[in-house]
Amino acid sequence: MRRLKCLVAYDGTDYSGFQVQPDQVTIQGEIEAALQRVTGESIQIAGSGRTDAGVHARGQVFHFDTSSSIPVDKWRFVLNNQLPDAIVIRSMEEASPSFHARFDVKVKEYRYCIDNNPVADVFRHRYADHIRYPLDVEAMQQAARHLIGTHDFTSFCSAKTFVEDKVRTVYDLRVERDGQEVWVICRGNGFLYNMVRIIAGTLVEVGQGKRHPDDLQRILLARDRELAGKTAPAKGLTMWEVVYTENG
Amino acid sequence: MRRLKCLVAYDGTDYSGFQVQPDQVTIQGEIEAALQRVTGESIQIAGSGRTDAGVHARGQVFHFDTSSSIPVDKWRFVLNNQLPDAIVIRSMEEASPSFHARFDVKVKEYRYCIDNNPVADVFRHRYADHIRYPLDVEAMQQAARHLIGTHDFTSFCSAKTFVEDKVRTVYDLRVERDGQEVWVICRGNGFLYNMVRIIAGTLVEVGQGKRHPDDLQRILLARDRELAGKTAPAKGLTMWEVVYTENG
Repeated sequence: MRRLKCLVAYDGTDYSGFQVQPDQVTIQGEIEAALQRVTGESIQIAGSGRTDAGVHARGQVFHFDTSSSIPVDKWRFVLNNQLPDAIVIRSMEEASPSFHARFDVKVKEYRYCIDNNPVADVFRHRYADHIRYPLDVEAMQQAARHLIGTHDFTSFCSAKTFVEDKVRTVYDLRVERDGQEVWVICRGNGFLYNMVRIIAGTLVEVGQGKRHPDDLQRILLARDRELAGKTAPAKGLTMWEVVYTENG
Repeated sequence: MRRLKCLVAYDGTDYSGFQVQPDQVTIQGEIEAALQRVTGESIQIAGSGRTDAGVHARGQVFHFDTSSSIPVDKWRFVLNNQLPDAIVIRSMEEASPSFHARFDVKVKEYRYCIDNNPVADVFRHRYADHIRYPLDVEAMQQAARHLIGTHDFTSFCSAKTFVEDKVRTVYDLRVERDGQEVWVICRGNGFLYNMVRIIAGTLVEVGQGKRHPDDLQRILLARDRELAGKTAPAKGLTMWEVVYTENG
């Protein structure tokens, strides 16, 4: 047996999220079916974390164990041939038997994309949320600063969650304009359910002038989901990068 | 009654082409349904031409007549509110009652996009055909030059067509690399069924070294569809621009 570590990108539009669920088409399900066709083995993969229905990935990571003797440099091509166009293996490498795609995560980066064109760019409609009026990116950036650091993020977590410990560390949160697109870029040691989408939705309300940038401080301290903004739509969110420890 | 001229962009991925067809979801069908909801009138639109299933548009043009008194500057917003995200009205203006979106076309531009990354860019998989080995763009450009001008394009027309006159004028045909994407850009006074996709498919074979650039001359003169290359997939094709006469 050997363990392989894989970097995968996907267009989440037509999938019910990453994780296998009964009677749903999922990213994990598609990858495991492809692995079965390639190896004849019944393989379960372990992702760095789930992504919700409609959420995309540029750099999701997963690992799996196999007895297959396919050389590591041939794997990517063989597997991509068996996968739908919406899922692309970017790279594969041998990993130590102790590597774990979920437990060894050091930093995760998510990016949220807003199409801020007055008239939506139709070729971005699956990958960005359209906000037609110009956003005040400076105000958004000012608001974002309040969330950097180690905090209890209860206010920015779906009320539907069962996780007890809602303390997370946001290493960096910035808002950047790239032409007519506005990106919310968030790096942290882990994220609560819907956390990046609620942060993005709240920052958009700041950018629209509906909230003052310093409100973020008050919202954070109140630990009350009701005070934060709307959860931004899934389609604008992309799991951008997963960083592991040096030996990962 | 007044006549309106509209510029529309669409993501053709999930549609059975532009033109209304029984039991199919089409771009024209969606636009006419939205117009009915907005005006209460049963309106038939006239496009500059059809696009096939899966083909996109950045600048398709259509016109229609209406008794509605909606001011021209409000139309775009009202109509976009009634359309799915995959169809976006870019602009609308009053047109003369003699303007016709199809008959008055002077020049049409189509662009074909090839994702030439070694590993496909998953966020372009709906809008570009993936060719993993680097294409020889210079050879493609050299080949393209043979097709510029007024010719009988029988070799570059689907055998399924019923059009008798297969003479068309290609004003410009160029191949450009933009980062990891290769674009085939074609301007002409009109195109035969599948013509741009067959041209793109043939130029790709030149770019792959399977054909000599000067073969295009021979293929063109033979007037035989069998000699040209494969029809490139619909998803890489976008109707880019439609140009009308000065008074259009």
